[in-house]
Amino acid sequence: MIACALTACLLVIRQKVEAQNCDSRPAEKAGPMTEAVGAKTGDNKSSPNFVTEILPGYRDWRLISVAHEEGNLNDLRAILGNDVAIKAYRDGKLPFPEGAIIARVAWSYVPSEENNKIFGRAQSFVAGPPTNGVQFMVKDSTKYASTGGWGFGQFDDGKPLTDKAMLQSCFPCHDAFKDRDFVFTHYAP
Amino acid sequence: MIACALTACLLVIRQKVEAQNCDSRPAEKAGPMTEAVGAKTGDNKSSPNFVTEILPGYRDWRLISVAHEEGNLNDLRAILGNDVAIKAYRDGKLPFPEGAIIARVAWSYVPSEENNKIFGRAQSFVAGPPTNGVQFMVKDSTKYASTGGWGFGQFDDGKPLTDKAMLQSCFPCHDAFKDRDFVFTHYAP
Repeated sequence: MIACALTACLLVIRQKVEAQNCDSRPAEKAGPMTEAVGAKTGDNKSSPNFVTEILPGYRDWRLISVAHEEGNLNDLRAILGNDVAIKAYRDGKLPFPEGAIIARVAWSYVPSEENNKIFGRAQSFVAGPPTNGVQFMVKDSTKYASTGGWGFGQFDDGKPLTDKAMLQSCFPCHDAFKDRDFVFTHYAP
Repeated sequence: MIACALTACLLVIRQKVEAQNCDSRPAEKAGPMTEAVGAKTGDNKSSPNFVTEILPGYRDWRLISVAHEEGNLNDLRAILGNDVAIKAYRDGKLPFPEGAIIARVAWSYVPSEENNKIFGRAQSFVAGPPTNGVQFMVKDSTKYASTGGWGFGQFDDGKPLTDKAMLQSCFPCHDAFKDRDFVFTHYAP
């Protein structure tokens, strides 16, 4: 799982970093794609290796796969892809082309009392409120050359995570899947 | 969960119906929407209350929500909607408009050994091979008047389920949610 990996890495780091300094700026209105995924040179809280603005329209992207993460994450999640990413997945194209973007959305893992009541047994776990932020991987081999050509980002309540230690923890985990262009998630047919 | 309900009902019925008579015809090439969801009067295995042809393009539809079903189902699933269904969900519009279609796809619930190895703990359950078929609810208040305006269908390996006892088990469960137009699944924001 691409962004599972990202989240899990962040979780490990989160446990190590005692003082968290998450930026509380409201999310800025996303500009054109080239701006949305670019480094913001005038903002010393940003880094050229990280995705600093939430990508518009991601909730409308097509589904790559789904997953359940256990432990502290305790979520149900969907991995979505923009058109470039979906086409690459379906064509089996590696490395992913420039412009491919993968998004991970997640919701609390909640037993469905209303379903279970109808079926008379513990049956369903469904998506509760959003949790664990929204994460992105953006393919730009020039801008993100030092992290396998991928920029990583996380947004909590629409606000970008800016803790560099946490963001820098993404790539070392993804590096384990260098042979498939650093992406965890397999396409679910 | 809409189609969770459908699957679970079918499962209960499956356990009750000893002799299963699933049609093994190859899935026909889907025609225009009006044909794809219509009754096939020349086919005595079909019923006007059931969706008899798989709906083209459903895997490209946008995501409504995700779920995990336990027990014999043991899957991870995604509920997808066509444009009419997605708009109705986001607008909070009930009943769903004519033409709304909701699809349920599912994959085996599989622990991710490769993820767990990286994180050093049991962490991820991911989508394995497809399982439990693909299910649809199609809103057509005239054609499916006797089942709340919804036609139900299931396709296993692309082939329609034609066991009437099993298909007729869908609506009684969905009837529990009459106040939200017989649909189980809530939209995951």
